[in-house]
Amino acid sequence: MSLMWRVKVVGLGVVALSLSLELLGWLFGRLRHKRTLNKVLFFPSEVACVEHLFSPNSARACFCPLPHGVETSFSRLLCHILSATSSLDLCVFSFSNMDLSRAVLLLHKKAVTIRVLSDKDYSAITGSQIGILRKAGICVRCDVDSAYMHHKFAVVDGRLLITGSLNWTLTAVQSNMENILITEEAELVQPFIKEFHRLWVLNDPARFYKNLISDDGH
Amino acid sequence: MSLMWRVKVVGLGVVALSLSLELLGWLFGRLRHKRTLNKVLFFPSEVACVEHLFSPNSARACFCPLPHGVETSFSRLLCHILSATSSLDLCVFSFSNMDLSRAVLLLHKKAVTIRVLSDKDYSAITGSQIGILRKAGICVRCDVDSAYMHHKFAVVDGRLLITGSLNWTLTAVQSNMENILITEEAELVQPFIKEFHRLWVLNDPARFYKNLISDDGH
Repeated sequence: MSLMWRVKVVGLGVVALSLSLELLGWLFGRLRHKRTLNKVLFFPSEVACVEHLFSPNSARACFCPLPHGVETSFSRLLCHILSATSSLDLCVFSFSNMDLSRAVLLLHKKAVTIRVLSDKDYSAITGSQIGILRKAGICVRCDVDSAYMHHKFAVVDGRLLITGSLNWTLTAVQSNMENILITEEAELVQPFIKEFHRLWVLNDPARFYKNLISDDGH
Repeated sequence: MSLMWRVKVVGLGVVALSLSLELLGWLFGRLRHKRTLNKVLFFPSEVACVEHLFSPNSARACFCPLPHGVETSFSRLLCHILSATSSLDLCVFSFSNMDLSRAVLLLHKKAVTIRVLSDKDYSAITGSQIGILRKAGICVRCDVDSAYMHHKFAVVDGRLLITGSLNWTLTAVQSNMENILITEEAELVQPFIKEFHRLWVLNDPARFYKNLISDDGH
């Protein structure tokens, strides 16, 4: 092969490689962009039956009087929570919503590792689900501070952040004007994971009692 | 020029163009990535002097007893609010923090278009800044609903979303465990802009009185 031909072949090879890289970069960018979930839900939510989310494979029809087959802000929120397969870290000020409690209990039954951090005062009020979760064997901690543990966020599988103004109550879901932001952006998810860990350790009752004993001089 | 030379020149031209496109795409991608702000702030914030944020060009020293030159969650939040140059849409349940009120009043003075939407019940409590903003000529609307307008978000210049669990109160900033998420992600910002517009129109007092009159049969 002459030198000229070799130059031509190498030239065309570089063109092909370069264009392929360009195409691959574009495709990868699109795929990556598609994978990063960013969603916002607003409340109050329409009221609709969510039975099918708890037993999707059940043939049993639901006869409740609520509208069926309607996708609402609440059903979308429930779906994202129920999507947990390995862990759910929940940090919520007020938790009295029965459907959300049922979702957490169902995940616990499916061996998803659950940690719940809540406000001491609000976990003691009538209707709070915190005691029920604790009795079911879920690991629950309450803040030992006098100020409010006012967060309302959850991290699903260390990957998905659910956060906003919405407390996990029926009033918040069905009556108030509220927002929930759902994101997989690592820059947003990672700080919440770190803060959950910090608060979890900070509110370890063992640590609290240890400090109490050492304060007494024992 | 021989045909072979022409083919070579065209081949090399395509290589150069292709590589340039690749490089430009990479640079643009990096720049775009750099421009999209995603940040999380946690509270309670350390307490520090924020005087310099209100008068950055003033040579006047501040003699308050608080620590100076310390960057805190609150000072970062204030900075983002004060960065508004054209508009600030604020949708907040409870607003009694004097520094945040001062920031909004300063922006109003600088001809930034401000719209404030707040909860009717909470805007009437002692210490609320809503009345002060209204008296200063800022456009304020309160929800006409009996449920809570429980949002705590702001949109700066139709570009930057500030949202979270934090009400604009002193307790929230200095005592509670709270979060603020700051983002420029269009997928997150746009729904909040749309929802603000919907709520702003929904809570137009003119519309409310018009409905009241038409309900009376006038």
